Amino acid sequence: MRVVIPYTPDDPKSRLGPPLDPDERAAFAACMLEDVVAAARDAGARPEVLSTGQLEDPPAPVHVDERSLSPAVDATLDPPMAVVMADLALLTPVAVRRALEAPGDVVLAPGRGGGTNALVVRDEAFSVDFHGVSIADHREIAAEAGLEVTEVDSYRLSTDIDEPEDLVEVLLHGGGRAADWLRGAGFRPVATDGRVTVARG
Amino acid sequence: MRVVIPYTPDDPKSRLGPPLDPDERAAFAACMLEDVVAAARDAGARPEVLSTGQLEDPPAPVHVDERSLSPAVDATLDPPMAVVMADLALLTPVAVRRALEAPGDVVLAPGRGGGTNALVVRDEAFSVDFHGVSIADHREIAAEAGLEVTEVDSYRLSTDIDEPEDLVEVLLHGGGRAADWLRGAGFRPVATDGRVTVARG
Repeated sequence: MRVVIPYTPDDPKSRLGPPLDPDERAAFAACMLEDVVAAARDAGARPEVLSTGQLEDPPAPVHVDERSLSPAVDATLDPPMAVVMADLALLTPVAVRRALEAPGDVVLAPGRGGGTNALVVRDEAFSVDFHGVSIADHREIAAEAGLEVTEVDSYRLSTDIDEPEDLVEVLLHGGGRAADWLRGAGFRPVATDGRVTVARG
Repeated sequence: MRVVIPYTPDDPKSRLGPPLDPDERAAFAACMLEDVVAAARDAGARPEVLSTGQLEDPPAPVHVDERSLSPAVDATLDPPMAVVMADLALLTPVAVRRALEAPGDVVLAPGRGGGTNALVVRDEAFSVDFHGVSIADHREIAAEAGLEVTEVDSYRLSTDIDEPEDLVEVLLHGGGRAADWLRGAGFRPVATDGRVTVARG
């Protein structure tokens, strides 16, 4: 199955700076993209990058569309196909396969904080809306079109890496390039009073 | 299988105040406990509450142990058995069953932020350590005892409700008493610039 992976090469992952400077954010985002592409490929799917700009040395075929996420993804919709976010640094081929093999006209993988981190679309009546509370919007769009929805219960699919507090998830549960990059940059988990966070150096 | 659910009735969920006052936190924590007990029971398991104090009208048999979490849980370990945290407000019988049916001497369900939200223990050589980065500690304890570890990839098991930002997960993905309680108390999801959060009233 085609797996479209949206990506923004211009100033990516701005909420990760600090602790990461702009060059580091670009390098880290590229590692996460490579991990997601590799997980999709190892799951037997055909990854494609949907990018807002040209990429040097892309890990998969690239289609450039400068528009924002929802219209750009909608323009690629050609069921059956999947959309997977580029910042799922914990992704594994097994987790990708759980989404691709789930039944239903539309398969949704919720992201933490109301997001939709992956979806499988098997019916042309569906369209995407990544703005706002996208998991609720996607359920509603599917319901209005009379489509059957399945949700995939996966921690790896639910974990997108947006904010500094997310980096510890990569260190503790990631096994790819992004985790290697973070360790190489000196990050390590530290336990504080409440949740566990990261320290550098 | 026996499922031990640790619970603290005295000033529970302190990080949820504000937005919740102490009485509200106690009521909400009790709803989450009831949801976890119901999910375990509906999964065909035998839930037991391991409480630091007496409970009025408990949803399952109660064993009182005033000690802190790790020694209290260690004292209940009698394999095969499971331990499931009391604040997993998104838990379903299917998610519980995925943990109980996973193979291995030890099954770990990671929680966000380095935690361990559920575990299945099938070998007496294992012991628990919930302090610090517990998922890393549990992997190490199992490795040192030569035990085979399986990890369960579940968003529902990974989501413990500790902080105000976690409440939106309950509203969007919970289907039990805790979600009903939150809605009844006037909470609803709102989309801001970054992640989605909750508003009241």
